[in-house]
Amino acid sequence: MNSYKKLLTRYKENTILGNINGTLSWDFEVIMPKKGTQQRAEQLAMLSGIIHKRSTDPKIGTLINDIQSDKNFDDMSALEKRNVELIKRDYDKYAKIPVEFAQELTKHGAIATASWKKAKTKSDYSIFKKDLAKMIDLKKKQAHYFDSDKDPYDVMLDNNEFGFSKKVYDKIFEEAKAGLVPIIKAIADSPNQPDDSLILRHCPTDIQRKVMFDIAKLVHYDLEGGRIDEAVHPFTSGYYDDVRITVKYYPEDFTPAFYAALHETGHGIYEQNYPPEFKYQPVGQSSSSAMHEGQARFIENIIGRSDEFWEFYLPRFKELTGKTFADVELKPFIHAINKVSPTKIRIRADPVTYSMHIILRYEIEKDIFADKITVDEIPSVWNSKMKDYLGVDIENDAEGCLQDTHWAWQYFGYFPTYALGSYYNAQFLTKMAQDIPNWRDEIRAGKIVTIHNWLNTNIRNKGGLQDPLDMVKDITGKEFSAKYFIENTKDKYSKLYGL
Amino acid sequence: MNSYKKLLTRYKENTILGNINGTLSWDFEVIMPKKGTQQRAEQLAMLSGIIHKRSTDPKIGTLINDIQSDKNFDDMSALEKRNVELIKRDYDKYAKIPVEFAQELTKHGAIATASWKKAKTKSDYSIFKKDLAKMIDLKKKQAHYFDSDKDPYDVMLDNNEFGFSKKVYDKIFEEAKAGLVPIIKAIADSPNQPDDSLILRHCPTDIQRKVMFDIAKLVHYDLEGGRIDEAVHPFTSGYYDDVRITVKYYPEDFTPAFYAALHETGHGIYEQNYPPEFKYQPVGQSSSSAMHEGQARFIENIIGRSDEFWEFYLPRFKELTGKTFADVELKPFIHAINKVSPTKIRIRADPVTYSMHIILRYEIEKDIFADKITVDEIPSVWNSKMKDYLGVDIENDAEGCLQDTHWAWQYFGYFPTYALGSYYNAQFLTKMAQDIPNWRDEIRAGKIVTIHNWLNTNIRNKGGLQDPLDMVKDITGKEFSAKYFIENTKDKYSKLYGL
Repeated sequence: MNSYKKLLTRYKENTILGNINGTLSWDFEVIMPKKGTQQRAEQLAMLSGIIHKRSTDPKIGTLINDIQSDKNFDDMSALEKRNVELIKRDYDKYAKIPVEFAQELTKHGAIATASWKKAKTKSDYSIFKKDLAKMIDLKKKQAHYFDSDKDPYDVMLDNNEFGFSKKVYDKIFEEAKAGLVPIIKAIADSPNQPDDSLILRHCPTDIQRKVMFDIAKLVHYDLEGGRIDEAVHPFTSGYYDDVRITVKYYPEDFTPAFYAALHETGHGIYEQNYPPEFKYQPVGQSSSSAMHEGQARFIENIIGRSDEFWEFYLPRFKELTGKTFADVELKPFIHAINKVSPTKIRIRADPVTYSMHIILRYEIEKDIFADKITVDEIPSVWNSKMKDYLGVDIENDAEGCLQDTHWAWQYFGYFPTYALGSYYNAQFLTKMAQDIPNWRDEIRAGKIVTIHNWLNTNIRNKGGLQDPLDMVKDITGKEFSAKYFIENTKDKYSKLYGL
Repeated sequence: MNSYKKLLTRYKENTILGNINGTLSWDFEVIMPKKGTQQRAEQLAMLSGIIHKRSTDPKIGTLINDIQSDKNFDDMSALEKRNVELIKRDYDKYAKIPVEFAQELTKHGAIATASWKKAKTKSDYSIFKKDLAKMIDLKKKQAHYFDSDKDPYDVMLDNNEFGFSKKVYDKIFEEAKAGLVPIIKAIADSPNQPDDSLILRHCPTDIQRKVMFDIAKLVHYDLEGGRIDEAVHPFTSGYYDDVRITVKYYPEDFTPAFYAALHETGHGIYEQNYPPEFKYQPVGQSSSSAMHEGQARFIENIIGRSDEFWEFYLPRFKELTGKTFADVELKPFIHAINKVSPTKIRIRADPVTYSMHIILRYEIEKDIFADKITVDEIPSVWNSKMKDYLGVDIENDAEGCLQDTHWAWQYFGYFPTYALGSYYNAQFLTKMAQDIPNWRDEIRAGKIVTIHNWLNTNIRNKGGLQDPLDMVKDITGKEFSAKYFIENTKDKYSKLYGL
């Protein structure tokens, strides 16, 4: 069908322009000379304008209509129909947004981020409040443009993870909260606390760097189609044959770079393993944000924080790091690596308390969009929830509601996907353990081949063929549930802490 | 005038897209993962297509006409008129090229470059010959599109350096040849030959890298708006606030990286010093290719190969490089740095014999375009000229007519600008020495402030306000001539070699 070919050509071209944008942004974050900021901003603005115009071009709508009303539509393959569906899903939303509104939103994102930075530096929420209020207002309007019949926060949630809504998340997070709060409490009360000093030892950047390249290869991140660089905040950027990751090195603690490397390679390996024949098609991407986050956390937590990983890796780690960790013994080291301890800062949280940071944000976002709390009330609500869920006292807003950049950059309804990834994973793991009964032995032997292939076959190679909830059901044969995550967490940490 | 504003906006947008292209190409050459080649080629092709379409858009022609026929045209400033003139100059040429022809030329450039690479590796000219013949044919056609009334090689020469033709170059190069051949002969016959071993000492890459950053700062290359990286062939890439240079390190010889660093910073400093108010306008660029090359060679040769530079820098160089050069004495070291010795390879040539490499290429290109020699005859003509001009025997074509990539990449008429830059410089230097009588003392003191400011005021800050021959005349008060270069060369090398 000629219209289908035309539609796919347009998609391909927009993808290529998006990839250019990705390279420019990577360069900006990682290596651009300081003075280049303004020039780069002009490049990114120009390119975004071109991409926006092309991807909301009414001709795309016409092509989609032509395809769907064609007499041969039913003869199209499932993959072809899926491609059309995915393009239509975005087009239907973004073509409704007036250009001026899209520009205003982007512009205000930059303004709000600047005032957020200032507010965070000075720990003064009042500097950010007005711009945050305006951003919330703009996001409500955007949700209205996307779908004026639906609740705006539901629109945002579905936009970030297809098929999700307050109704779905409420159930999941209630279950997670009910399961996790007692575990966190029991861990805090346990007399068996790990010894941090086994980890917090001076380890120079150049040695850490060698370790990161070593573990990246171990988990099958392809360095011929990737790079590992340093950036203020770790991230992954790229497409298919050029997918780059970044970490940040702290000489007094190797774990942030180590787990960022495993996390980001997890993202990178996903991107590197879509089927080549899906390239430049809508199916040549991840199923969803949470599925992507899940693939990152699979490598980081399920593999990289397992006992078996360190059974294999500790001797090699000792070798690579010289005498620094020579005296460390396996069991106490594994416990230290898996230390659970409530923190004020989300990005420093362990895999157990992490969910509580997300639930807190979800509840606040929900109440903001339902006009149940005002921007004035955010700090006090934040602090009281932190106390309730994690027993943590927030002393200033920089370590409270100002810690994340997301809201300033218009990401509302996005935080929940961070937790969801781990919940998907726990359910996948149950199935993988049936398919590969000796999967732990494989990690213990330092071979991650069967596991890598299982993830490829079941998840990565499927690209965007299915939406996440369908994918979970198809792979595991069960409806998605958070219970697997709660169970796995209970199991793992009960053993570690002797609960 | 509204049309002027519209024209400039289009120019600005195309410049921004060109800058994006520059960043993508830099990334490709310097840091891109190996597997990314195909994806990057698709990005560059897509972007080039967009740029070509935008810069040959008939609306540009309409805008130019509107401006030039406007009743207020005469009220426009000289700068505004120059902007229109520069846009018109390119538009008039490129808008005449049919899209299919432009694509064929680009495509054949890639094909010919691939066969050139193969031919060079195997030192087998026959592999490249057919593609070279086709390229010559395409370039003749392009010249015909540009201006069907003029001799095609004259069109190419003027396209690469405005105001130049065979008539102009013939005169210059005859003068240069007549002046240089006897100097080269006298140097070869001199008993005072320098001692290479003062230079060819092992100097590790990380130490060399420190030296490069040190000298880059010394000559006022702004590292806050630049970077120094490693690439196979040194080059400069960027615009205004983000101008990056590359060098290539050879541990057994520090001079290739050292002089590449000075050469490329020379290019970089030019780009970094156009007036901010010219940004995104046609005047916000160099006056010409040769003027750019001249600025690079000014830093490299006039400053970096002067006695005074090493009087200042040798002690610092010794300090930075540890014990490696501790025993070296100034005079013999300066002589070794300025060694003149005919080479087969252009890019390894010293500043004296370099011109002969260019003259040889110019003469061959001229005869090719005049159908006086065929592609079959190129190797034998090349080899016999090398023998005549430099006394060098070419034993295989890889070190002869296959050494440069330019012809494969469609650069005909470009080589002459490499020599021209040094000739401009010599004439500028005569004027600068009048304006700053103690300029050599300044270098000796390690301060290059007045010289830097002189180059800024007279050349760099003028951007593209004037064509090169006008600029030379305005700055020096004299018509352009190669005689200054011959005189300076005689002076300098007679002293060094005791002629």
